[in-house]
Amino acid sequence: MYNYPKPLAKLINELSKLPGIGGKTAQRLAFHILAMSDDEAFEIADAITVAKKEMKYCSVCGNLTDADPCAICGDPGRDRTVICVVETPRDVAAVERMKEYKGLYHVLHGAISPMDGIGPEDINMKHLIVRLRGDDQVNEVIIATNPNIEGEATAMYAAKLIKPSGIRVSRIAHGVPVGGDLDYTDDLTLSKAMEGRREL
Amino acid sequence: MYNYPKPLAKLINELSKLPGIGGKTAQRLAFHILAMSDDEAFEIADAITVAKKEMKYCSVCGNLTDADPCAICGDPGRDRTVICVVETPRDVAAVERMKEYKGLYHVLHGAISPMDGIGPEDINMKHLIVRLRGDDQVNEVIIATNPNIEGEATAMYAAKLIKPSGIRVSRIAHGVPVGGDLDYTDDLTLSKAMEGRREL
Repeated sequence: MYNYPKPLAKLINELSKLPGIGGKTAQRLAFHILAMSDDEAFEIADAITVAKKEMKYCSVCGNLTDADPCAICGDPGRDRTVICVVETPRDVAAVERMKEYKGLYHVLHGAISPMDGIGPEDINMKHLIVRLRGDDQVNEVIIATNPNIEGEATAMYAAKLIKPSGIRVSRIAHGVPVGGDLDYTDDLTLSKAMEGRREL
Repeated sequence: MYNYPKPLAKLINELSKLPGIGGKTAQRLAFHILAMSDDEAFEIADAITVAKKEMKYCSVCGNLTDADPCAICGDPGRDRTVICVVETPRDVAAVERMKEYKGLYHVLHGAISPMDGIGPEDINMKHLIVRLRGDDQVNEVIIATNPNIEGEATAMYAAKLIKPSGIRVSRIAHGVPVGGDLDYTDDLTLSKAMEGRREL
């Protein structure tokens, strides 16, 4: 049987470890990389190495950063009275893309999920409480964990911990997505949208 | 506006140069790589560098290889009387996967395409003729270029060049894919399948 030459087989194998990249796609990518110029290919390898070496987690908010504290925590123009709690650095990027939120962040790096054996002590939750205790500027914590069971459980847990300190705790609204179709909206989302209705 | 830290932005940019990887997917992959252990991430970078450095083209058939001549050209067990002509190294892999063909290969690295300004001199065609001239063992050349306009043009051109030397030139059959549905087969394929019918 024909086997790919070892360096090619290794490359295909490594690429297929990435999420959403199956065997076929990994082959296509590997052949594409081999058809690139040396410089182009080495630049990809280099970008991985450099990013992995230079990116770390902000010691204040837990977001991915190449400087500590991160650009958001260190920005004097941000509103230091609000902290938005999210599950992952990607969620920070999503909220930032909206270009409306001017407060700070706290990245939990996960959500509470008893099914998967992930408790509050396995995520960056304790650090949030310590951070709030040492900071008297914050007057609102917006919980923007995902709208699923784990995200909801995490939101409930965080709210219970934070509320006694007198800080306002809010949760992002559930509802019908803008541009969406009412007819295609699932029952639970629709019922949450009705529940969260606002007077016009 | 929030910008990704430079090393992360660079990584996303590099990944999005890969085929079929859009901006969103590149972000997802980049965040995934940053969440990996250092070793795992460096192994991907290393696989790219090593593959790019060690893989070259076989001086005989033009296939991708880490040794010259390649494992197929150097295999004494292969049938040296047949050469299968394909467009890319991926096509060699496709034919090999079938595990039935035991002959040699010739990789053209493209197909003739006047629309894109690619002529016979831009692909590995001349080398095929030189190879056949210096080799009196070959008695059949199977043209397995893609079943599209460029592949057909390339097949016609190669046949015209090779036939005068008395070597048999054949073309892989067009027809209805095995397991396919006649109802869903396009007209041209169906007409080729009728044309190429064989007595039972």
